[in-house]
Amino acid sequence: MTLRLRSGQAAGSAGRHTTSNVRVRYQETDQMGVVYHSNYLVWFEIGRTDWLRDTGVTYREMEADGIRLPVIEAHCEYRLGAQYDDDVEIRTGAKRLSPVRVQFDYQAIRRADGAQLATGYTVHATVDREGRPVRMPDRVKELFA
Amino acid sequence: MTLRLRSGQAAGSAGRHTTSNVRVRYQETDQMGVVYHSNYLVWFEIGRTDWLRDTGVTYREMEADGIRLPVIEAHCEYRLGAQYDDDVEIRTGAKRLSPVRVQFDYQAIRRADGAQLATGYTVHATVDREGRPVRMPDRVKELFA
Amino acid sequence: MTLRLRSGQAAGSAGRHTTSNVRVRYQETDQMGVVYHSNYLVWFEIGRTDWLRDTGVTYREMEADGIRLPVIEAHCEYRLGAQYDDDVEIRTGAKRLSPVRVQFDYQAIRRADGAQLATGYTVHATVDREGRPVRMPDRVKELFA
Amino acid sequence: MTLRLRSGQAAGSAGRHTTSNVRVRYQETDQMGVVYHSNYLVWFEIGRTDWLRDTGVTYREMEADGIRLPVIEAHCEYRLGAQYDDDVEIRTGAKRLSPVRVQFDYQAIRRADGAQLATGYTVHATVDREGRPVRMPDRVKELFA
Repeated sequence: MTLRLRSGQAAGSAGRHTTSNVRVRYQETDQMGVVYHSNYLVWFEIGRTDWLRDTGVTYREMEADGIRLPVIEAHCEYRLGAQYDDDVEIRTGAKRLSPVRVQFDYQAIRRADGAQLATGYTVHATVDREGRPVRMPDRVKELFA
Repeated sequence: MTLRLRSGQAAGSAGRHTTSNVRVRYQETDQMGVVYHSNYLVWFEIGRTDWLRDTGVTYREMEADGIRLPVIEAHCEYRLGAQYDDDVEIRTGAKRLSPVRVQFDYQAIRRADGAQLATGYTVHATVDREGRPVRMPDRVKELFA
Repeated sequence: MTLRLRSGQAAGSAGRHTTSNVRVRYQETDQMGVVYHSNYLVWFEIGRTDWLRDTGVTYREMEADGIRLPVIEAHCEYRLGAQYDDDVEIRTGAKRLSPVRVQFDYQAIRRADGAQLATGYTVHATVDREGRPVRMPDRVKELFA
Repeated sequence: MTLRLRSGQAAGSAGRHTTSNVRVRYQETDQMGVVYHSNYLVWFEIGRTDWLRDTGVTYREMEADGIRLPVIEAHCEYRLGAQYDDDVEIRTGAKRLSPVRVQFDYQAIRRADGAQLATGYTVHATVDREGRPVRMPDRVKELFA
């Protein structure tokens, strides 16, 4: 399997953002009646999966090609609690920090009223199957601002 | 790595049960104020992990030896809801259904008053790394009633 | 808030089914490389949430009206493992077992090839805020086959 | 229910740390073969629950008394991946940031060799049942450095 760019896709446009949709699962709530905080990291994962997919390179393909992006740092600030059955939009951007580091930035927005629920970021190493740092192929590198 | 029996351990004694302890995590509750139902399957996994460990063969070792026990059927009946910070005891038994099938049975008990919260069972195939059915080695087979 | 039927919605048509879409999250996989089995119960919850929504009565509204549907029994049989980023369709049906019991039935289908991944059901009590069994209002009752 | 200090317990000793034990659940692993990163936030919750319990005031009691500590910020840095069945120690400390803010600090240590797996912190508001900021009672306040 080879990393592919979708035809007609302008790779690496600075500031490119994607949006993903999440509907809050009952399982994601806790007894405070709002979404348990660690679930935002799972939603962020959906955001970066879609960001990558939108470039024409799915993370699934990257893994099959032997490149992995383990999380080495995660951060989240919480403003308002999402509730069961809320529609939440995840807005995701990305940038390259170094030849072997990338960062994704996220906002979680409640669709009903546009309220910002949380913001956060994750930093990822680019490693091979054995966990050794590797430079991303040029094609993938270009996708990040 | 070889499958080992702990010395002095009577393997395969019929009706052997083990007990595991779980303290309810806030993350496991939902907005009804009790543990979300799918978490009992996770607790049952802890139960069978400890049942295997108690025989002297950890599941980790079995996997390293190329034997896997994927769940092919799971069942749970719920009586009372566990609450945040409750101490819950998982009682686990096991039996062999066929040369390539085993079943674990579970009870979830609230320690404070001995109330039965849930009962259930899981059925597992014994497969190799490629997912093909394999007979368990005699040593492991003997561990099941 | 009142339980409402969507205008033009034929309530309680026997055999009514709804379909829901799930894309497998990385978080839902385990080290066997497939979706951890308890997640199917979470997907089933998405199925019955959509089944209810499709009737014009969301579960969120039912809860606000003081009616809850705690799971009292859950069952799942697993055939094929879903993998990261797979698109999975959940097909959900429902029937009334008694004035205070309902059952939902589920199939999980891999969209790429229509393969059946798992089937299952959940049984629910209809209770009020204090957990006492209550008959469902006629409007809701009619929605079940 | 009243907030209580365990007799003989020196409250609020600066730099007080507690340790909690977690054994990695199969459900917590992902297809990379290590613990999925959001689970560390769940383990941190276990750490602060035990930190509070150790002071003689359980979080369950605080909630019953109408005081909540929602997470308003969470941060984690990952060094080594925990694996299935690993014994992990969570070391937890805490300090007061303001009359209505507290911070918990965490380390996740692999017991087998003392390797540091991750470090992190969470910041919490002290709020009442309606989510309004409240000062903690003196007794609880004293427990933080």
